[in-house]
Amino acid sequence: MRSEIITLNKSRNVTLTIYLQSVGGEFSYVPKRPAILILPGGGYQFCSDREADPVAMPYLKAGYQVFILRYSVQAHNQWPNPLEDYEQAMCLIRAKAKEWNVYEDKVAVIGFSAGGHLAAAAATMAENKPNAAILGYGVMGKDVKGCNASAPDTVDAVDQYTCPCFIFSTRDDGLVHIDNSLDFMKALSKYQIAFESHIYAFGPHGFSTCDASVQNHNNRDICSRIPNWVEDSIGWLQDMFGGFGEGKLNEAVCKPHVTDNYKAFLSVDCTIGHLLMNAAARAILTYLREQSQGSGTVDDMVQNMTLREAMHWQGVKEEIIVGVNEQLGRIENRI
Amino acid sequence: MRSEIITLNKSRNVTLTIYLQSVGGEFSYVPKRPAILILPGGGYQFCSDREADPVAMPYLKAGYQVFILRYSVQAHNQWPNPLEDYEQAMCLIRAKAKEWNVYEDKVAVIGFSAGGHLAAAAATMAENKPNAAILGYGVMGKDVKGCNASAPDTVDAVDQYTCPCFIFSTRDDGLVHIDNSLDFMKALSKYQIAFESHIYAFGPHGFSTCDASVQNHNNRDICSRIPNWVEDSIGWLQDMFGGFGEGKLNEAVCKPHVTDNYKAFLSVDCTIGHLLMNAAARAILTYLREQSQGSGTVDDMVQNMTLREAMHWQGVKEEIIVGVNEQLGRIENRI
Amino acid sequence: MRSEIITLNKSRNVTLTIYLQSVGGEFSYVPKRPAILILPGGGYQFCSDREADPVAMPYLKAGYQVFILRYSVQAHNQWPNPLEDYEQAMCLIRAKAKEWNVYEDKVAVIGFSAGGHLAAAAATMAENKPNAAILGYGVMGKDVKGCNASAPDTVDAVDQYTCPCFIFSTRDDGLVHIDNSLDFMKALSKYQIAFESHIYAFGPHGFSTCDASVQNHNNRDICSRIPNWVEDSIGWLQDMFGGFGEGKLNEAVCKPHVTDNYKAFLSVDCTIGHLLMNAAARAILTYLREQSQGSGTVDDMVQNMTLREAMHWQGVKEEIIVGVNEQLGRIENRI
Amino acid sequence: MRSEIITLNKSRNVTLTIYLQSVGGEFSYVPKRPAILILPGGGYQFCSDREADPVAMPYLKAGYQVFILRYSVQAHNQWPNPLEDYEQAMCLIRAKAKEWNVYEDKVAVIGFSAGGHLAAAAATMAENKPNAAILGYGVMGKDVKGCNASAPDTVDAVDQYTCPCFIFSTRDDGLVHIDNSLDFMKALSKYQIAFESHIYAFGPHGFSTCDASVQNHNNRDICSRIPNWVEDSIGWLQDMFGGFGEGKLNEAVCKPHVTDNYKAFLSVDCTIGHLLMNAAARAILTYLREQSQGSGTVDDMVQNMTLREAMHWQGVKEEIIVGVNEQLGRIENRI
Repeated sequence: MRSEIITLNKSRNVTLTIYLQSVGGEFSYVPKRPAILILPGGGYQFCSDREADPVAMPYLKAGYQVFILRYSVQAHNQWPNPLEDYEQAMCLIRAKAKEWNVYEDKVAVIGFSAGGHLAAAAATMAENKPNAAILGYGVMGKDVKGCNASAPDTVDAVDQYTCPCFIFSTRDDGLVHIDNSLDFMKALSKYQIAFESHIYAFGPHGFSTCDASVQNHNNRDICSRIPNWVEDSIGWLQDMFGGFGEGKLNEAVCKPHVTDNYKAFLSVDCTIGHLLMNAAARAILTYLREQSQGSGTVDDMVQNMTLREAMHWQGVKEEIIVGVNEQLGRIENRI
Repeated sequence: MRSEIITLNKSRNVTLTIYLQSVGGEFSYVPKRPAILILPGGGYQFCSDREADPVAMPYLKAGYQVFILRYSVQAHNQWPNPLEDYEQAMCLIRAKAKEWNVYEDKVAVIGFSAGGHLAAAAATMAENKPNAAILGYGVMGKDVKGCNASAPDTVDAVDQYTCPCFIFSTRDDGLVHIDNSLDFMKALSKYQIAFESHIYAFGPHGFSTCDASVQNHNNRDICSRIPNWVEDSIGWLQDMFGGFGEGKLNEAVCKPHVTDNYKAFLSVDCTIGHLLMNAAARAILTYLREQSQGSGTVDDMVQNMTLREAMHWQGVKEEIIVGVNEQLGRIENRI
Repeated sequence: MRSEIITLNKSRNVTLTIYLQSVGGEFSYVPKRPAILILPGGGYQFCSDREADPVAMPYLKAGYQVFILRYSVQAHNQWPNPLEDYEQAMCLIRAKAKEWNVYEDKVAVIGFSAGGHLAAAAATMAENKPNAAILGYGVMGKDVKGCNASAPDTVDAVDQYTCPCFIFSTRDDGLVHIDNSLDFMKALSKYQIAFESHIYAFGPHGFSTCDASVQNHNNRDICSRIPNWVEDSIGWLQDMFGGFGEGKLNEAVCKPHVTDNYKAFLSVDCTIGHLLMNAAARAILTYLREQSQGSGTVDDMVQNMTLREAMHWQGVKEEIIVGVNEQLGRIENRI
Repeated sequence: MRSEIITLNKSRNVTLTIYLQSVGGEFSYVPKRPAILILPGGGYQFCSDREADPVAMPYLKAGYQVFILRYSVQAHNQWPNPLEDYEQAMCLIRAKAKEWNVYEDKVAVIGFSAGGHLAAAAATMAENKPNAAILGYGVMGKDVKGCNASAPDTVDAVDQYTCPCFIFSTRDDGLVHIDNSLDFMKALSKYQIAFESHIYAFGPHGFSTCDASVQNHNNRDICSRIPNWVEDSIGWLQDMFGGFGEGKLNEAVCKPHVTDNYKAFLSVDCTIGHLLMNAAARAILTYLREQSQGSGTVDDMVQNMTLREAMHWQGVKEEIIVGVNEQLGRIENRI
């Protein structure tokens, strides 16, 4: 494994540690690898070593190229310095994708605590978005002001362009309130963004991988399920990126948006609420409603259900669903 | 194992299936067992067999006494019929606790989909609350009106008396929107209720245990992490109830409330926001704030953090924390 | 779930407990189920409840029809009484396969300690063999004489007709020495029988499922990996039987014999040692050896390697392997 | 993480790759780390990259210092060259233990295939034995001659000084026959050496960690349980070495010998067979036998059972066991 530390910004003390694994040769069917960029926590006052190397190891095992960004902290933490550091790192990774054997459209980011805030900022407001983001006990909401007054609320920044997210935290985290995770998920839900989330019943802030060499297990009870986030996040990345196939990654099994609300044209996989905002689609749904035995008007239907699911639920025949889908497919999706 | 079906309400076709395991004898250190009451789903139109027996098995394996309630559906689903059925079942289990070798204060409820709604109603508005509730892809919000117009929104019903909850669902559930789980968690958060939650990236509605004999795996991709909820829920129940010890359950490692906001007297384990609502406590915090180097007033502090955590964060000495705790402990907690 | 106790032999106090799950209806793609017959341990002096019901639960969860045989013990334990009890139970299960919705060629047996001896006897010397056998800390060798002087050594009974086995135990089992498992595996190896095995570093005899409600965890250290045998055995049964498919079990991915040494005709999947015992095959191998660059004669080749693997190892072209296979396929396999 | 390649023997092209993690600082309770030395496979013709870096990652995650030895192969593979390379590497690791922050008495070795042979040689015949050995689909027996005619049979080399072993392989490994693992375990059993073992039903030779980036999963069925060996081996090492504690490793929960047969003085934790070889001990056992109701002589007792276990089994009182233990403790254990 090749290992190196690249200075990104000398005056702000920003570095990128790179861990690059071999491709080809004995790994003949692996010409490139997906990648992950680690953003350690530390309240924008330092970059914790506990959330740096120990986090690299499981993703290296899973076959990733791994990068650790030590971004601007303390005197240099004024926004948007940290986000600029991220942009620089992500640009470099993608620019060097060929040399570093990285799939440039399969680069995830993972951040913890304040680093989780930065990862959420990357996922929502960066110019060079990651392809997936893992947010560990992150300060996604306005609570971030408590450690960095200049840092923005990332919950407000979620929109349809936000990348898929994997969120984990503990319910009783005393430092970063669980509402940070909940509010962020609620925003992702609003914009149809794919996500997965694991909130463990109890445990300390800052557990990192929760390996016994990183999080001291001798002092207190720690919820035994916490370490599962590591393997679960790897499984999730595989769902979003595709697993290792013959000379390429296999097809992903999970889409970045859970509905078609943000596609160019309408479909039965848009939500009913979304379709009803379009006059032509509303006319189609109204006609369908009149034909069915359902009582009430289209506005009484469950607005956040997709039309396909609603028709399945009502036992509508597959051929009719296909026909409706074709009709909707001719309507441009302007929002 | 003793197995029996008890008719609870003949006219409404309500039954309680009981699966009772042995105690004593070769299980000499197990004089009683915790219990779980299963509420299958089915849109208040039927009680699904897929969410009945198959759900019983893992809890039986984990040492529980297991009960399955087939509650009022279809013509009988008018609220509060289903909740009354629950009350009747829970009363019976606790009344028979001695005969059935059940720890009467360790009875959980688990519900799926519409049964998840009923379990959430039990957790929030029942007279005979369960000691813990597991809610699988439950219809906790007003969406329940789509399948039972008379059923109440349980999100609104969450308060400080709600029991601890374990919540699982899939992000792209097409039938029950993820907001049902998110909104419920947000309400639990508000009232300091302990919970754990697992939202899987994708998968069909109604997967039950997701065993291959219950959920057909041959037709579509199913998120490989879904089946984990079963063992995770068993681990969580052990955290809340305590594991099997010598002639009793061991002490629980997780408390039902994550702060002391609802205790009889104040403490440093109350949130700052809560303490500031009390004049005497506000005076103490204001004095502390003035003594510390922190800028801003007490109202600028992170309101949902406990005072203990905030003092830890600021490096306040343990003896001072103990002293403050004693002072607060003399103040009655009226809210 | 239907539950019943059938008396098989009143004078010897032999019973069969049956746990039958539903098929069809909401389990529309499950018309039948595989089955497992549980043989509890107890030194042929009793049938332990700890290795009866608690063992049933995980296989019920996995979709099996489950049977528990309480066989002849104490005064009635004279061989072949226990084996006859087994034969009677297995005959009944297969005779009732249609009524009980059982795949009659997918019936496993699982036994513990002395019950592991009986399961091994079923696997090796029964007239009505199971389709797979799970042997938990079993007394497979002559040590069985210590608890039942009339019981036979099952290691000696292994032959080519023995069914596939899954074997688990602990290294430091003080009651049943690990050599029982090792010697049995060595015998299975000799006859090319498929098996899987897990020997855990340490732990008490008789842990059953090792659930905390069955095996007291409060008194001593217990190897944390022990409980894995349960899910591993379920995965193994699926490998041997095939998982639940549409109206049938999917194709099995693991064969009952690991080579073709016991097929009607020879093939490249026979071991070299086996092929060399046949004059015609020996001639073919000798010719091949002469053509290759390998030094030494055919008798210097690794005798327990299959010819296919040896040719792969030497880089022989696939088309030549196919040709050799055709030649061997014309030679009858007499042994 | 510090990474470096040290040349151990230039003429034979032997190198040691070192991966050293931080101690102290943010890892304040971790002043040193246990270590593992990786020996890749490759038939003594090469050192496979697939069994080098990918194997390092999980042990790094688990908190280990990791070393990879590329030993003498091809023209240099003449025995004892590879073993000498091992001795040199192990000596260096222990000599540098202080500088490299390694617990010098907690250094494991792991080897695969031919590297498994070398690891087994280290465990049995090295001057500088490892403290534990992990043997993956290793060529422990005389089959090693097939790839290195000069290499010794390590099964024959097992004795009372062999270190504890963790053994894994697949039942149908076509290249290295399962008997290699079985015969090695049988030898370990004879000399009371602690071990753990996992033999998976089926799978290819050379799967390494079985991660999808190392072992191509697209071509064939691979037993789904294979990857478990990685975490299981980490758990086993923790059992043998002790987990991370406050400034030291916690006490180990598993002993290197499963009986006291090799202690300086006799005890009730020696096997009966061993005790009977000593005249004084034989006299004690004979007396005990006469006092008990057991039929037969001491030579009829199960010879490989410890006396403690046998007395427990017969219900002998604890105080008598203590007394017998004291008597035996005065007898020197000469063998």
